[in-house]
Amino acid sequence: MTGFVSFVGSGPGDPELLTLKAVDRLKRADAVLFDDLSAGPILAHARSGADLVGVGKRAGRPSPKQHHVSQLLVEYAQENQRVVRLKSGDGGTFGRLEEETDALKAAGIAYEIIPGVPSACAAAAAAGIPLTRRLTARRVQFITGHDVRGALPEDLNMAALADPQATTVVFMGQRTFPALAAMLIDGGLPANTPALLAEGVSTDAQALHRMTVQTLADRLRRAVSDAPALILYGALAEG
Amino acid sequence: MTGFVSFVGSGPGDPELLTLKAVDRLKRADAVLFDDLSAGPILAHARSGADLVGVGKRAGRPSPKQHHVSQLLVEYAQENQRVVRLKSGDGGTFGRLEEETDALKAAGIAYEIIPGVPSACAAAAAAGIPLTRRLTARRVQFITGHDVRGALPEDLNMAALADPQATTVVFMGQRTFPALAAMLIDGGLPANTPALLAEGVSTDAQALHRMTVQTLADRLRRAVSDAPALILYGALAEG
Repeated sequence: MTGFVSFVGSGPGDPELLTLKAVDRLKRADAVLFDDLSAGPILAHARSGADLVGVGKRAGRPSPKQHHVSQLLVEYAQENQRVVRLKSGDGGTFGRLEEETDALKAAGIAYEIIPGVPSACAAAAAAGIPLTRRLTARRVQFITGHDVRGALPEDLNMAALADPQATTVVFMGQRTFPALAAMLIDGGLPANTPALLAEGVSTDAQALHRMTVQTLADRLRRAVSDAPALILYGALAEG
Repeated sequence: MTGFVSFVGSGPGDPELLTLKAVDRLKRADAVLFDDLSAGPILAHARSGADLVGVGKRAGRPSPKQHHVSQLLVEYAQENQRVVRLKSGDGGTFGRLEEETDALKAAGIAYEIIPGVPSACAAAAAAGIPLTRRLTARRVQFITGHDVRGALPEDLNMAALADPQATTVVFMGQRTFPALAAMLIDGGLPANTPALLAEGVSTDAQALHRMTVQTLADRLRRAVSDAPALILYGALAEG
């Protein structure tokens, strides 16, 4: 017997948006390592007696060193445990998955990746709109508003981002959106391009706010909520 | 009582990648309208006696008129039925969702959208790689290789697409990839940029082929498989 790690995307928050495969892996796990965002009813699928280990990464708050999380994963697996590493949304999308898979590879531990419903898809669904539109938004892109320093990433591709013919979803971008919006408008995106602020997607705290890129930037310059939020902008449908 | 339509993303094909909410809606449906791609074991969740209606859209084959599908949805709902409209992957991502929601709005019929696991996320997971990378692929974009005429869409944003610092996923793009690749390389994307052809993602027919953008274009110029396939290119991780 050897240990094995399942990276499981837990979806945007609503426990009903777990996949059947995610539930199966939770039921069979000896240990579950989870971030704050994916806690609660989702963990109720784990068997009693399983180790439930919060590793507490959350955008905007101090987080344990990534190295420590990877080390914990390796240690559990080396004790021949079946480990589930829960990641909110789809683990492969802004989930810092690679740092953990690299640690497992270095230690010779096998793993699988189980995709999940990205929060971006759930945000659009909650708003009643598609991410892509046949004639006006044939490209959809996901970016992060927040690099390892917590700042707007450098070397943004403005020709890609200031494109009104794409739907853009900004992850972890509330604090940096005023600066991004100024760059977008400077790069040619109309200030009145539709925008959607989607807070607490698929949870009881869900709140959706439709505005324009300019009015959203103005709002976020004044105040930013503590809730995890996504920002969508582009040729958004009416909903 | 009035009819109600649930648009349900069925995920990439593996019935275990259905969400719990998708299973719930299937169990409670009076009628399920499905495309070829989402048939089989997924439909087994529907109750016996439910109408299972194939509406047979599939990339590269003649499909029923979109108008006909929308009309069927409206008719079932007007008979006060609970209707599930299954869409493979995430229905809001290249699922022509809007044409159907517009028809329901015009007829005054309520609906919900239940997001699913996009095939793009499942393709990366199957290859053991993330869609985003902390330093080298902080943007991920999904495009279609195939417009309503079946040709490469016009007005592609080449500055967005020829960017080696993004992960790009091309949906329905096997036939047009040789032409796209030539434009990408002309636009500055290195010909040896990593590429992945992912056929039949998450199904028994799954096959993953790692190449470069140039060698994949050469391969697809010679022969294209009938299987649904995605193409990923960019700063792909090793897997």
